Amino acid sequence: MTIKLHCFGESGNAYKAAITLALTDTEWEPVFVDFFNGATRTPEFRALNVMGEVPVMEDGDLILTQSGVIQDYISSKTGKLGGRSAAERRDVLRWMFFDNHKVSGVAGPLRFNLNFLPEAKRNKDVNDFLSMRLNSALKIMDTALTGRDWLTGAEPTIADLACCGYLYYPEPFGFDRKAFPQIDRWLDGIAALPGWKHPYDLMPGSPADRA
Amino acid sequence: MTIKLHCFGESGNAYKAAITLALTDTEWEPVFVDFFNGATRTPEFRALNVMGEVPVMEDGDLILTQSGVIQDYISSKTGKLGGRSAAERRDVLRWMFFDNHKVSGVAGPLRFNLNFLPEAKRNKDVNDFLSMRLNSALKIMDTALTGRDWLTGAEPTIADLACCGYLYYPEPFGFDRKAFPQIDRWLDGIAALPGWKHPYDLMPGSPADRA
Repeated sequence: MTIKLHCFGESGNAYKAAITLALTDTEWEPVFVDFFNGATRTPEFRALNVMGEVPVMEDGDLILTQSGVIQDYISSKTGKLGGRSAAERRDVLRWMFFDNHKVSGVAGPLRFNLNFLPEAKRNKDVNDFLSMRLNSALKIMDTALTGRDWLTGAEPTIADLACCGYLYYPEPFGFDRKAFPQIDRWLDGIAALPGWKHPYDLMPGSPADRA
Repeated sequence: MTIKLHCFGESGNAYKAAITLALTDTEWEPVFVDFFNGATRTPEFRALNVMGEVPVMEDGDLILTQSGVIQDYISSKTGKLGGRSAAERRDVLRWMFFDNHKVSGVAGPLRFNLNFLPEAKRNKDVNDFLSMRLNSALKIMDTALTGRDWLTGAEPTIADLACCGYLYYPEPFGFDRKAFPQIDRWLDGIAALPGWKHPYDLMPGSPADRA
């Protein structure tokens, strides 16, 4: 049965699930969610996910939400990208929580505010605050990646695919790869994995469609 | 072997780990981290946790960080508070990610800004933005709790103990229990569990110590 992923190109949280599906050679297809025209605020979507967010995954009758849960499910189902030991699996989960809390959880709103929010609603103080928090988290990741190819062990895992969720997008949100040389190298390493695709090539919808 | 938890009373993230230890009848002791005097910024602390945060758990030689990882470890070790089926365990993880991303991940900085940051550094626009995001997340939780005692099933789990992490603190941060009647009832339900303690009674350090 082909897995369905409700998603849209601009969502880095959906990208984490989509790139996990892609890099585990899972058979899947995207279901476009028209976020920018209010699709996640409809009663139909809220019935699918009370949290009102993408990604939502359907595997037959099983419906899952939260990118981290979907990543964990796909990794367990395929036996890929999950870490090699109980200790590494705990470290994978550790970086996934760090990502949700301090990396994607901040980069997502910051990129939205700076690129997709109407100019009249943008607030410099808010975005400076988010930028400061994001840069602190990225500095921690850059330090952790020093001398190693992947966040948790000898192979890439869903932790790497969580933490990179927002870091390939072209829209400016104050993230300069060259300021974080270890992250820069690590992003190149992920992008070199067989089957890797850019978010706008992997999922339907991009700013170009709305231009 | 007695588990050590590096923590301080004001940290809702540490509280999630501490209350999980308490409600699983685990033998543990707190190690006070003097956050307000810079303890998490020292090289010694960074060597313990590159992320520079509490909680940090030591169980013999095993060191774990991130509240969600510690909660998951303690739940697995004790066989308590983890959910009764694979489906419920996925739902537990789902709410833990939601908490890290949208509840505690926002309530923590907001409460810090409004209560512990010097007044000259407080910024109304930043705090209004965080407050708006927190209230959206709390509304989703309130809806999800309608007609049920716990977030994921018939018994409390570590998902409940994650999502409540910042919600018992007395310092004002725009959270009014009475505006969220389902959350209000659910918080009373958690507080009625045998062994429950308020964060300032469970962990060392509180604003009163610094007054």
